[in-house]
Amino acid sequence: MNILFASTKEKPEFWFPLLQKALPADRFCAWPDINGGDIDIALVATHPKGTFAGLRKLRLIQSLWMGVENIVGDTELPRGVPVARLIDPGMVAAMGETVIAYVLDWHRHFYCYRSFQNQKTWKRRRQYLASDRTIGILGLGELGGTIAAKLLAMNFNVAGWSRRPKQLDGVYCSTDLEDVVRRSDALVCLLPLTDKTRGIVNARILALIPKDGCLINMARGGHVVAADLLAALDSGHLAHAYLDVFETEPLPADSPLWSHPGITLTPHIAALTEPRTSVGKVAENIERVRRGEKPLNTVDFAAGY
Amino acid sequence: MNILFASTKEKPEFWFPLLQKALPADRFCAWPDINGGDIDIALVATHPKGTFAGLRKLRLIQSLWMGVENIVGDTELPRGVPVARLIDPGMVAAMGETVIAYVLDWHRHFYCYRSFQNQKTWKRRRQYLASDRTIGILGLGELGGTIAAKLLAMNFNVAGWSRRPKQLDGVYCSTDLEDVVRRSDALVCLLPLTDKTRGIVNARILALIPKDGCLINMARGGHVVAADLLAALDSGHLAHAYLDVFETEPLPADSPLWSHPGITLTPHIAALTEPRTSVGKVAENIERVRRGEKPLNTVDFAAGY
Repeated sequence: MNILFASTKEKPEFWFPLLQKALPADRFCAWPDINGGDIDIALVATHPKGTFAGLRKLRLIQSLWMGVENIVGDTELPRGVPVARLIDPGMVAAMGETVIAYVLDWHRHFYCYRSFQNQKTWKRRRQYLASDRTIGILGLGELGGTIAAKLLAMNFNVAGWSRRPKQLDGVYCSTDLEDVVRRSDALVCLLPLTDKTRGIVNARILALIPKDGCLINMARGGHVVAADLLAALDSGHLAHAYLDVFETEPLPADSPLWSHPGITLTPHIAALTEPRTSVGKVAENIERVRRGEKPLNTVDFAAGY
Repeated sequence: MNILFASTKEKPEFWFPLLQKALPADRFCAWPDINGGDIDIALVATHPKGTFAGLRKLRLIQSLWMGVENIVGDTELPRGVPVARLIDPGMVAAMGETVIAYVLDWHRHFYCYRSFQNQKTWKRRRQYLASDRTIGILGLGELGGTIAAKLLAMNFNVAGWSRRPKQLDGVYCSTDLEDVVRRSDALVCLLPLTDKTRGIVNARILALIPKDGCLINMARGGHVVAADLLAALDSGHLAHAYLDVFETEPLPADSPLWSHPGITLTPHIAALTEPRTSVGKVAENIERVRRGEKPLNTVDFAAGY
């Protein structure tokens, strides 16, 4: 089969040697070189405009990322072609590392000790047990479910919100957003970005997080109303916020988020796709298409992810 | 029995209600009020000078901390009275949280992203898998063993050094210090401070950590030769150091450690004794003395801990 790689973010030089080894009989090309137009599979992550034009034989659009809002939102998306999300075990593990690092940074006051260090101040904050804290997770899919289990193993209490009812061992699961947020000393956003989740973390929700709590947004910038977050930090209600994602990326130099003392931010690196752990998942879906089977982890366009 | 509480750091008002509830028949007093001199048990943590003078009935010195170098080093220590270390499950869990937070901070380059944020720089570092890294642990006792298991569960490779041969599932254990340090991308010090471990992390050992590695010293300031650490950071050999403990505490305002960009430091808070989780352990040892049994976790004076 002919497989097109089309991404403004992922680099074909990292992927092609691994893909070619996993799929030795297939031919790979990198957009805009579409190899005569007979493309069977498109591998995409923030694809260039016009990627799908003229690809009449396309049988699968395989995302190289878990988040697919750039694909679902593309008005030039060919009708009837399935789109698959990538569930990369390396990316899921990386997200677990980041969320645990930030939960501990807040739980053990390390953000605060960094400012004490800047002031050369030797001062202690009260130490809490993990069992004194409840971590709330918005989104109980592959990421949220995995991370909930890791936090439970560290003895935190965990509450989780999802649109559809879920049951996870040891987790207080609810479809009532306000109920979950009221219980959440730290609120972690891991949702897909859809029409229903855009702006979900707004002033009303931030006010329900118990005082001295924190927000950890590792999903998409569009989930959080930035002005409302700044107000919740400035009022002293929230102790800290950890942000990896922004409405505009790279974050513009004039954004007040960069230098706010209550914000720790990173350049959308919470969890990167890892070619070594994901090429097997990509190859598996390509083999399924070759055998005429339904690919795994296809997008539900009605839900938006 | 008469139980004396003698500490310049721990506060009797947090401990007495819990102790009295666990041991309703016993009488508690706080140094220097020694209740007539008939003290059976002394509960200590950085005890005041002269604490043990005239305590002729003393049957147990129970530390409220895991580290006992202040007790072992007290020239006025009454001969023949057993000294017990405190193995507090809350303190062990807290140390696990701190070490994991710092291992992740280094592994995922968060120390570096904080400096990028200060410069308003949107730039990515390479993401590694946990399985690409080996975490080395100096000291495989209660803390080291517990933390090794937590790191293995996160998919890190773990190597460990101990004075006496040990075997821990999945951990590369060795009594050869240089062998362990050469394998350790991040080196975590959790040793007791004794004549044999003072200054153990010196220029020679720091040079054996692979380039871009880090040091995490959560044990005692005396383990690390501070001038050698500063040189290893300044030369660019070590990427970062995390320090919770110092030769002199509070750390003097003129110490160069405060403002070195390669150092993240905290005021000896990596793991505080938690009265809620440790009072049961203290009570258990007191009951053993009452029944004429040998208390648990007594100090081996030849080893120094």
